[in-house]
Amino acid sequence: MIISTKKGTPQVELDRIVDNFEKMGLSVTIIRGTDYNVFGLVGDTTKIAEKDVLANPWVENVTRVSAPYKRANRLFHPQDTVIDVRGIKIGGNNPIVVMAGPCSIEGEEHTLKLARAVKEGGATFLRGGAYKPRTSPYSFQGLGTEGILDMVKARTETGMPIVSELMDEVHIPEFEAYVDIVQIGARNMQNFQLLKAVGKMHKPVLLKRGLANTIEEWIMSAEYIMAGGNEQAILCERGIRTFETATRNTLDLSAIPVVKEKTHLPIIIDPSHATGNFKYVETMALAAVAAGADGLEVEVHDNPQCAWSDGAQCLKPDKFAEMMEKCRKVAAAVGREM
Amino acid sequence: MIISTKKGTPQVELDRIVDNFEKMGLSVTIIRGTDYNVFGLVGDTTKIAEKDVLANPWVENVTRVSAPYKRANRLFHPQDTVIDVRGIKIGGNNPIVVMAGPCSIEGEEHTLKLARAVKEGGATFLRGGAYKPRTSPYSFQGLGTEGILDMVKARTETGMPIVSELMDEVHIPEFEAYVDIVQIGARNMQNFQLLKAVGKMHKPVLLKRGLANTIEEWIMSAEYIMAGGNEQAILCERGIRTFETATRNTLDLSAIPVVKEKTHLPIIIDPSHATGNFKYVETMALAAVAAGADGLEVEVHDNPQCAWSDGAQCLKPDKFAEMMEKCRKVAAAVGREM
Amino acid sequence: MIISTKKGTPQVELDRIVDNFEKMGLSVTIIRGTDYNVFGLVGDTTKIAEKDVLANPWVENVTRVSAPYKRANRLFHPQDTVIDVRGIKIGGNNPIVVMAGPCSIEGEEHTLKLARAVKEGGATFLRGGAYKPRTSPYSFQGLGTEGILDMVKARTETGMPIVSELMDEVHIPEFEAYVDIVQIGARNMQNFQLLKAVGKMHKPVLLKRGLANTIEEWIMSAEYIMAGGNEQAILCERGIRTFETATRNTLDLSAIPVVKEKTHLPIIIDPSHATGNFKYVETMALAAVAAGADGLEVEVHDNPQCAWSDGAQCLKPDKFAEMMEKCRKVAAAVGREM
Amino acid sequence: MIISTKKGTPQVELDRIVDNFEKMGLSVTIIRGTDYNVFGLVGDTTKIAEKDVLANPWVENVTRVSAPYKRANRLFHPQDTVIDVRGIKIGGNNPIVVMAGPCSIEGEEHTLKLARAVKEGGATFLRGGAYKPRTSPYSFQGLGTEGILDMVKARTETGMPIVSELMDEVHIPEFEAYVDIVQIGARNMQNFQLLKAVGKMHKPVLLKRGLANTIEEWIMSAEYIMAGGNEQAILCERGIRTFETATRNTLDLSAIPVVKEKTHLPIIIDPSHATGNFKYVETMALAAVAAGADGLEVEVHDNPQCAWSDGAQCLKPDKFAEMMEKCRKVAAAVGREM
Repeated sequence: MIISTKKGTPQVELDRIVDNFEKMGLSVTIIRGTDYNVFGLVGDTTKIAEKDVLANPWVENVTRVSAPYKRANRLFHPQDTVIDVRGIKIGGNNPIVVMAGPCSIEGEEHTLKLARAVKEGGATFLRGGAYKPRTSPYSFQGLGTEGILDMVKARTETGMPIVSELMDEVHIPEFEAYVDIVQIGARNMQNFQLLKAVGKMHKPVLLKRGLANTIEEWIMSAEYIMAGGNEQAILCERGIRTFETATRNTLDLSAIPVVKEKTHLPIIIDPSHATGNFKYVETMALAAVAAGADGLEVEVHDNPQCAWSDGAQCLKPDKFAEMMEKCRKVAAAVGREM
Repeated sequence: MIISTKKGTPQVELDRIVDNFEKMGLSVTIIRGTDYNVFGLVGDTTKIAEKDVLANPWVENVTRVSAPYKRANRLFHPQDTVIDVRGIKIGGNNPIVVMAGPCSIEGEEHTLKLARAVKEGGATFLRGGAYKPRTSPYSFQGLGTEGILDMVKARTETGMPIVSELMDEVHIPEFEAYVDIVQIGARNMQNFQLLKAVGKMHKPVLLKRGLANTIEEWIMSAEYIMAGGNEQAILCERGIRTFETATRNTLDLSAIPVVKEKTHLPIIIDPSHATGNFKYVETMALAAVAAGADGLEVEVHDNPQCAWSDGAQCLKPDKFAEMMEKCRKVAAAVGREM
Repeated sequence: MIISTKKGTPQVELDRIVDNFEKMGLSVTIIRGTDYNVFGLVGDTTKIAEKDVLANPWVENVTRVSAPYKRANRLFHPQDTVIDVRGIKIGGNNPIVVMAGPCSIEGEEHTLKLARAVKEGGATFLRGGAYKPRTSPYSFQGLGTEGILDMVKARTETGMPIVSELMDEVHIPEFEAYVDIVQIGARNMQNFQLLKAVGKMHKPVLLKRGLANTIEEWIMSAEYIMAGGNEQAILCERGIRTFETATRNTLDLSAIPVVKEKTHLPIIIDPSHATGNFKYVETMALAAVAAGADGLEVEVHDNPQCAWSDGAQCLKPDKFAEMMEKCRKVAAAVGREM
Repeated sequence: MIISTKKGTPQVELDRIVDNFEKMGLSVTIIRGTDYNVFGLVGDTTKIAEKDVLANPWVENVTRVSAPYKRANRLFHPQDTVIDVRGIKIGGNNPIVVMAGPCSIEGEEHTLKLARAVKEGGATFLRGGAYKPRTSPYSFQGLGTEGILDMVKARTETGMPIVSELMDEVHIPEFEAYVDIVQIGARNMQNFQLLKAVGKMHKPVLLKRGLANTIEEWIMSAEYIMAGGNEQAILCERGIRTFETATRNTLDLSAIPVVKEKTHLPIIIDPSHATGNFKYVETMALAAVAAGADGLEVEVHDNPQCAWSDGAQCLKPDKFAEMMEKCRKVAAAVGREM
């Protein structure tokens, strides 16, 4: 960590700063400039918050040199994390996984029908929402436990593990019992209570990136989960908020190489929520595969116009199968199976 | 709600759209253009989500004419909501309230000392964090119940009602018993589970605006609380994320006239979190008063360099008293008491 | 265009609105709602600015149904525009073009050396900056005419057409004489004077997207060029400004399918400026090809550490050749030559 | 400037870095850490671009400690710059100036009528656009020279100096001859050619902040003007682009204390373009005065519904006079004349 102080900072204040950090076990070097003095701190600075250092009115500027995360940091864990879900491996150089299914679960029969369809198209996981985060209190809020049980039946029949969103720690026992991958939604990426709670779970967590969050903040949220003891964090990019309105959000595919450089965690791409428009999903899925994604999460519905939520971004099963066909070719071109 | 369909949409699809909406009890008018057809829906459209309508591939565009909120809407509730907290009134043309205190509660004595200091400076409420949302799992997470009880003691002595942040519904009984205004933090603005839970509380809720949320989304989150039965929602603007780095966030003071036009709820301004820098707090507090804020929330600490969190944005008690003095003059200039 | 008026708008005001638009040759339909009245305008609305309509205090809301652009609009020009530059075709289903070279031109010999290197790697155009937009007045501002002439020599030797940025209409005669594709930089995307001026040129214009501009605004800037008579507009996505700091900008690859849907113009992707980091360039180039880009613009330098500008994002010639090799495989996988 | 290098950087590369900077006349200190080495550069670093240093693949991170601007820097010029325009002083503790008038000039008589009206309301300058930057090539582009001459006549009659936007260096002689303050629009804030050109003018330049630019970038654009020899730069905040749609842009009033801390230049606030809505202009003008603005720029029109551009944000003359009345009270409350 590098700290610069203002012109004219009295020696006694400089000494106090050095003292403070040395007491924390850090070693401190000073560079004296004409207009500024600069301190370099060497040691474990993950416990120091930049803004707390800025509380000193003599401090001008604070820069973190090493990343504020440890468990997620590739520097201390060079090999890729591979997560095994009922025998399917996610991450490393394993085949690209595909989580597909409806936005909202809409009943047993419908879930089964879609599960079969996406499996036939090549999906490896069934995704579906039983608890739905909706911006309006007047919108459909999900089938709840009933929806989870519908997915369990589909798993029994198709063998595909299931992915569903957790919104409330109250439902952790239910998810621990039934769900294979616990999804944390973009709007809960910094719901630190929920992160702590899933950090104590024994299931992999698919952590969606917040709509206006940096990659570092996202990794820090993964660090919360890992610090609780659950090392099975998977990152999921689903588009960030920008000024663009032609797409619902802007899919940040450069997050793939950045995440792979900074961390050892797998990264999944969700082109459905990112674009919000079925017309753009296939194109972005192809791009994600070319860019090295470890998996895709795609919404599929047999009758999007009547979907209980987010129909505009759903592919029909035949279009999904077509997309998969094309993705496999791109995967092969970049030396990856799918 | 206005819906436009693509060029060449078959008549049977147009008929189906009309049918669907008429079944929902809406009346539908069509405008036929050369390149587009446009449908106007008249009736209660708050239950319809724009993106669900877009699921129809023949639909080009959806525009909401009336706001998606009802309880918070000034159109249906023209008079200002005034919230009474132990005799102090917030909103309407009542005197501007000031919530002041440390970012984190740091023990009984310290809390008492600061409570006396801010009261002397003119504060009407004591604010303090006992449960702290921190981006790093390695940072101090708050004193918890102990911190709440420290605030209760300070209330007993000074008479000032207390404001504190709730992060988890598990603590609702504690907040219901001890806290006067329940704060929901910016990062939880779209934690819909928590919004539903505080919607059942009997205490006023101070809802902070999310860092990258629009005013409409913010009002929709207030609507969640109100739809649960708790009409005592107070909005708090605390800066939004922009590309600017000289301030931590960008304080959006134009939210004041917009909120007052669209809703009947009180609006409070937090210049401390918005700027992240004690040097800019007074200036922005003055601007907020001039712009018609119903209150301020300001962080105060006797020794900011040693504050357990966010010291960089804390005013010392004497600076707080100075700020209050200047604010009272500006309040008088715009015809408001403080 | 759809216009909604406020509750309680007097009949005389409604009549006046209808009158105004009818005088402009538009036909007007009214939908009467409980809380609002809505007007639908049918006819050519490209001349009407939304914000001018909002000047009427009785107007609540204005929505544009048809796009505000005509010449660039795919609706009126369904087939792809293909631009021929010295026999190389850009757009349509033609082979993907690659514009490569240094950020700044650094002298005759160096330019020749790099031109040969990128040609060998598979580039079809030589790019290089002779006039440089720099945020600091104290930074190197480009070699000017000398740099343009260096590129001309490299074209003579290698046969590759040249692409260079124009910053000032004063240099139009020089560019008309020597340069094959005239680049307009991101910071000049809404320099309307310059757009009008290149609209009178006889050379193709590569229009970079502004850092915080929507796709619609970008297309409107292309419309400026086309309205001047120069139909040879090429769009270039080079990253937009977001809160992310791990990359210089965020490459918006979803712009590719959106641009191809809304317009008939070719679209080129610049992964170098978007990421600002040589480590991420190849990955994003592969993704761009998978997503259907008509071309790439890539910065290449033999000694990036000593480049006169933007070395951090330059590939060395051997890495460029490797990238091209991989791109060709992805292109083949999506049915395109390169 | 602080530079950190990666773990495992070879000694020969570290030596090369030190060498390079020492040759530029800088003195270099090294701090050796476990995972990183850090270099501190002392001396004039304004000529070094951060991204050029990042071109070295061994470099991890670059931080600028001192600001990249000199002439605009308060550190080297502690007293406020005061600009004298025909006897009216802008900046320092001088009375707050008010630039008012129509968005577009609409002919001689209309200009005179509005000039008289705003003068009566208390304006000190007449603003008006003769050359208009419009997003659509099909919109009205301004009266040009005729509009400038209409303003000159209004100045002759009322004595108010005139402010108008320059879009093209071709018109510099005209502006040098007739206009008192040369405005550079937000979209041209990084049109470096134009900045260089006005840097050679002898008239004060009102530099609007770009829609998505940081305060530092804005000051760097002022530095361009000052580096050319024209020290009369005035900064004008007019709203930045955010996700909010209830206002056209978000007025960043915290720019006032930041600009006053970092530079010695005057700062003017334009609440009309920022909000885009006449209903919010007065409130934001009051807030700007409370926050210490050196002036306001406000659009006024006698018949906003028929204004040739931007009518939605225009105040009528009587509302303008009311606003001025209220602003004077707030100015007095913060110890400033108006």
